[in-house]
Amino acid sequence: MNVDIDTLVYLVPIAGIIGLIVAGVLTKWVMRKDTGTPEMKVIGDAIREGAMAYLARQYKTIAIISVIVAVLLVALDWRISIAFLIGAFFSSLSGYIGMRVSVSSNIRTASAARRSLNESLLTSFRAGAVSGLAVVVLSLLGVTGIFFLYLFVLNNDTDFESNSLWFSNTLNLVAGYAFGASFAALFAQLGGGIYTKAADVGADLVGKVEAGIPEDDPRNPAVIADLVGDNVGDCAGRGADLFESTAAENIGAMIMGSAIYLYTNDPLWVFFPLVVCAFGMLASLVGIATVKLRNENEEPMKALNRGYFITAIISAVGLYFITDYMLGAWQYFVCAIIGILLSIAIVYITQYYTAGSYRPVREIADASETGPATNIITGFSIGLETTVLPIIAIALSLLASYALGQDAATLLGHPDQSFIFGLYGTAAATIGMLVTATFVLAMDTFGPITDNAGGIVEMSNQPEEIRNRTDKLDSVGNTTKALTKGYAMGSAALAAFLLFSAFFEQVVIARNDMGLNTSLEEVFHVDIAQPQIFVAALLGAMLVFIFASLAIRAVGKAAGGMITEVRRQFKEDPGIMEGTSKPDYASCVDISTKAALKTMVLPGILPVLTPIILGLLMFYAYDYGTDNGGVIAVQAVGAFLMVATIAGILMAILLNNGGGAWDNAKKFIEDGHHGGKGSPAHAAAVVGDTVGDPFKDTAGPSLHVLVKLLSTISLVFAVVFVTGTFPL
Amino acid sequence: MNVDIDTLVYLVPIAGIIGLIVAGVLTKWVMRKDTGTPEMKVIGDAIREGAMAYLARQYKTIAIISVIVAVLLVALDWRISIAFLIGAFFSSLSGYIGMRVSVSSNIRTASAARRSLNESLLTSFRAGAVSGLAVVVLSLLGVTGIFFLYLFVLNNDTDFESNSLWFSNTLNLVAGYAFGASFAALFAQLGGGIYTKAADVGADLVGKVEAGIPEDDPRNPAVIADLVGDNVGDCAGRGADLFESTAAENIGAMIMGSAIYLYTNDPLWVFFPLVVCAFGMLASLVGIATVKLRNENEEPMKALNRGYFITAIISAVGLYFITDYMLGAWQYFVCAIIGILLSIAIVYITQYYTAGSYRPVREIADASETGPATNIITGFSIGLETTVLPIIAIALSLLASYALGQDAATLLGHPDQSFIFGLYGTAAATIGMLVTATFVLAMDTFGPITDNAGGIVEMSNQPEEIRNRTDKLDSVGNTTKALTKGYAMGSAALAAFLLFSAFFEQVVIARNDMGLNTSLEEVFHVDIAQPQIFVAALLGAMLVFIFASLAIRAVGKAAGGMITEVRRQFKEDPGIMEGTSKPDYASCVDISTKAALKTMVLPGILPVLTPIILGLLMFYAYDYGTDNGGVIAVQAVGAFLMVATIAGILMAILLNNGGGAWDNAKKFIEDGHHGGKGSPAHAAAVVGDTVGDPFKDTAGPSLHVLVKLLSTISLVFAVVFVTGTFPL
Repeated sequence: MNVDIDTLVYLVPIAGIIGLIVAGVLTKWVMRKDTGTPEMKVIGDAIREGAMAYLARQYKTIAIISVIVAVLLVALDWRISIAFLIGAFFSSLSGYIGMRVSVSSNIRTASAARRSLNESLLTSFRAGAVSGLAVVVLSLLGVTGIFFLYLFVLNNDTDFESNSLWFSNTLNLVAGYAFGASFAALFAQLGGGIYTKAADVGADLVGKVEAGIPEDDPRNPAVIADLVGDNVGDCAGRGADLFESTAAENIGAMIMGSAIYLYTNDPLWVFFPLVVCAFGMLASLVGIATVKLRNENEEPMKALNRGYFITAIISAVGLYFITDYMLGAWQYFVCAIIGILLSIAIVYITQYYTAGSYRPVREIADASETGPATNIITGFSIGLETTVLPIIAIALSLLASYALGQDAATLLGHPDQSFIFGLYGTAAATIGMLVTATFVLAMDTFGPITDNAGGIVEMSNQPEEIRNRTDKLDSVGNTTKALTKGYAMGSAALAAFLLFSAFFEQVVIARNDMGLNTSLEEVFHVDIAQPQIFVAALLGAMLVFIFASLAIRAVGKAAGGMITEVRRQFKEDPGIMEGTSKPDYASCVDISTKAALKTMVLPGILPVLTPIILGLLMFYAYDYGTDNGGVIAVQAVGAFLMVATIAGILMAILLNNGGGAWDNAKKFIEDGHHGGKGSPAHAAAVVGDTVGDPFKDTAGPSLHVLVKLLSTISLVFAVVFVTGTFPL
Repeated sequence: MNVDIDTLVYLVPIAGIIGLIVAGVLTKWVMRKDTGTPEMKVIGDAIREGAMAYLARQYKTIAIISVIVAVLLVALDWRISIAFLIGAFFSSLSGYIGMRVSVSSNIRTASAARRSLNESLLTSFRAGAVSGLAVVVLSLLGVTGIFFLYLFVLNNDTDFESNSLWFSNTLNLVAGYAFGASFAALFAQLGGGIYTKAADVGADLVGKVEAGIPEDDPRNPAVIADLVGDNVGDCAGRGADLFESTAAENIGAMIMGSAIYLYTNDPLWVFFPLVVCAFGMLASLVGIATVKLRNENEEPMKALNRGYFITAIISAVGLYFITDYMLGAWQYFVCAIIGILLSIAIVYITQYYTAGSYRPVREIADASETGPATNIITGFSIGLETTVLPIIAIALSLLASYALGQDAATLLGHPDQSFIFGLYGTAAATIGMLVTATFVLAMDTFGPITDNAGGIVEMSNQPEEIRNRTDKLDSVGNTTKALTKGYAMGSAALAAFLLFSAFFEQVVIARNDMGLNTSLEEVFHVDIAQPQIFVAALLGAMLVFIFASLAIRAVGKAAGGMITEVRRQFKEDPGIMEGTSKPDYASCVDISTKAALKTMVLPGILPVLTPIILGLLMFYAYDYGTDNGGVIAVQAVGAFLMVATIAGILMAILLNNGGGAWDNAKKFIEDGHHGGKGSPAHAAAVVGDTVGDPFKDTAGPSLHVLVKLLSTISLVFAVVFVTGTFPL
């Protein structure tokens, strides 16, 4: 086989290098900003030290678990094991870079707010862009690098040039990278999510509710832990989430490309996802460059939206030419546009359900008048309701992109392979959705930076004008954080089918090695009308429930500890409330740190073990001795995966949007409705907001990662379900 | 064809008549009891009038909607339409009988408590038994009557004697009965659930929390509505739930029997479920007769448990002989025992998770120390956790009964039909679970009766000794109510597979009518690896979320109205709190009534329309013009059904057990832990209890009915998904 590496493919490393250069330039730009008053610096230092200390310990834990898993993975293939480690390392590295920039830029954003809103916005947003670039570039370069390394150097086949499964076999190994990325991301998201919400809940309940002091008041012993949490949860956590999205979805799409390669003999189907992502990253650079306020009175959200639409339009134009050149079927261009439109639709739906200007949040605010119980009942029912529109949008996108892909099969002269070409349509839609990932991530990281800046301004007693500026940015940051969660959930949902297909393509390869030659179309069945498969589906949904339970409980317990500690400090040293003595911030930081590291392990390990154990049990119960290539085991894992994905998406939407709606119902009341701050309705809304905290910032976002982790595990372990043993 | 009606089949009408006679005797026994003091009578009359007035209006609404649906059903077959109406009518009638007995016996139970605990227990339990008998006997006689009527009189076929599909075609029509029963049950459960919780939440939040008066205090304007609610929600609602369980599961099992009939030519497979249910009812009579206290100090729960185990043991012995005689395969006996064991297992699991003596409830009570938010967070995570053990028990029961049934196929000389015989194994397990239904229902209805009796004793200011007796019974009633919910959910889960199979058997019949001759094994596939089918599965899970949202929201809104009204009365007439003037009970009854009737319609109609619309859309999008017998449409509806069932079961467990745990955490604190009544922990626990109310008494139990309603709708409309049109 002679692979003609098309010139377009060189775009990927070139774009990567450009991305890194721009990231360096932006970092320098941000770091040249001043660090404000000495008071600001003290607070900023405390946040930075807390965040870095936590991250160091978290990465140590992740590293230990990852090395254990990597050693076990050698039983599959040492190259999978290496890919896994690189994936886990790059995932953590991109989180680390994002964090470093974030904890250095929060104080600079605060200081810039003393001069102008625009400068403050630029400082925080460009710092966010560094984080976004780090995530996307590292993910892309990692996939590309390891793919070509395994393709040309560390190849499986002695006679690979004549082997049509060359790509497939290579990607089989590269899948370890996606697994590693998802694995590290789950721990980062869980650990960060538990940390941030334990601190937040503790700080709010004792500080705001019991002691009646404002948010971010320096007298609150948990305030530094809370600000540290914004960084390790929202910033490092979401970064890891989208890192593994990019990695898993690219690799999944490439696997589908390798399936099509068998029919078209054209390697461009394999390279297409990488090229599109690289181009999207470049388009995002243009979008990022255009973000600035036209004048001091412009709404910051407008500037961000402008940048987003510029990114989307450039991406769409580029997609047209790339699709035409690489795939030669207009249908896939439309698929990618569907992906972009879906991300926009989900953003609007999320806004409708979680913004104070619409019915849902107002209903929760109304219900707060009759106390916390009705606030919770209404909020929970709104959360359940918010699943409807996103699911319909996702369903239509899936069906449309599948149908378009099937249509392309005919256009391209492969009418008998319409199934696989159809699946590639859903891959194209997913890739289309990811095209703006860099920009979206920049907006997302902007959130915790401005949140921190607001805290620093508050704690260092700056004049009201400056607080107003950071408050404005902080509220925009809350919106962008909610939107990114919607975006991450939507991409997880759209990618689901692509990753299922990739799993079954791995099954095909494993069966081929056994001499059971079958096509993807013959193998890719998940018949839940068989009792065994139905039971696996049932267990898949159950996993989502127990996972969410563990994640939420972890926050509840840690928050309980935090509340007790803050109460103790207030009681034992009355000087804290009078402002004469300094609270012990470190003990609160310590509680969050220990709780996060301790409680993230079980929910992190559970989704790794369950599909493997289920698959093996099913194999030995039903397939053992039949030489049928683990038909029941494979379908059972498939059903587990698919129904876990369905339940995971729904649960994530419920938790994310329910939490977001509670949060904004509280803010709506704080804006002077229903009696405003200090009213009974406000007290009720604070309870709802607190309940929503672990929903929206711990369990919900972790579920996005969970569903993809399940997919990438299955990808890597497909051979085990087919043969019932580990290759080594 | 010559059907030899075996003598054992005559057991069914005979048992039915015995059941009715015993019900009459028990009613007389209960009604001969005295109605206590004049004060008691006033309160009892108010409850009876309120309940009957509500029920009359609720049944009027259900009647109107049912007639509309029945008219539309004529487009399928007028006999389905008649069967539907009879099912809806019998379902409502059994609810009505239960209610009548309940509202007459509450006051007699209260009065009997003045004499002894034993007499009070007997009065309430025997009244509950009347309700249980009414439900099971009416369901059984209804199915049997309509089945033989359609089999011999109003038959489809002119030449039926030679038609091997005689049973199948008859059951096709009888399925309308199950649909009617589920349809009416959903409204009864929803309406009753909304009514009771709107009143309960309203009464508790203003009365107990704000005004600080005890539960069931006559000064609380919502107290009568609350006591009425116990009857219309717990009593009529759960009765309707188990009525339709018995109907749907019997008919489903008979349909599976008719599929086996094609191979064995033995009609006993069709009659088996009816005979077992009839026998179980008789066994329950023995169990009911044995319930009494050995002495005044015995725990009432012990007496109930004794009766339950006697019922279970007699049933097991009878099952052995019936299975041996009718089916000739010991495996099905084991399947039925698995069903009985599963019901016991679920009862114990439910107790562990919702009783104050174990870890989960205590954890919630602990979390109440740090306020309502941590109480809610912990309770919700416990609710999520409670799904694990029941799901594993259900999964194992399904797999074991399926494997045993497959094994029986070999024993009986039909190794090639192991799939169908395996499915019959799951049917046998379901029937085994239902065998004790009469006794379980008696225990369940006992709950609201004693709850009411306690309210009457409290409101009529009886001495403490008497209150202690009714309190004891009330607390037992709370336990039995929780257990019955677990039982209903378990049977819904176990029945699910049976009902899926029955749906596909209806598809086989519809395909036969088109000339597409296929076996169940060929048709019964639900391949969620096809994007269209996956999307249908996604929508099925979504339906559960939006349904739960509507049910919970209805309570939230109605409770809000109730709170406002009670606050208004307290404010406008201070004499109420001083005990000098009587509150306006009627206005609160009116609020609950109107809210329930108004808000039950949308969540009731939604699950009827969605599968039909989905099936038709799928047919015209993918099957139209192919003459393939609606392959995609049928699989899509199947996937919708199956994944809705999975999501529904999990959500129901979460809501039921979460609510139960919150409730008992509050009671645990009221028993003097964490500061007891009036402490901040207690206030927090009351919030949790209130949030749990609509979870456990409105949305959760309605979900049991929902999943079966989806199945029975699909059964009836199978022909529409196969042909894309209505037969007429």
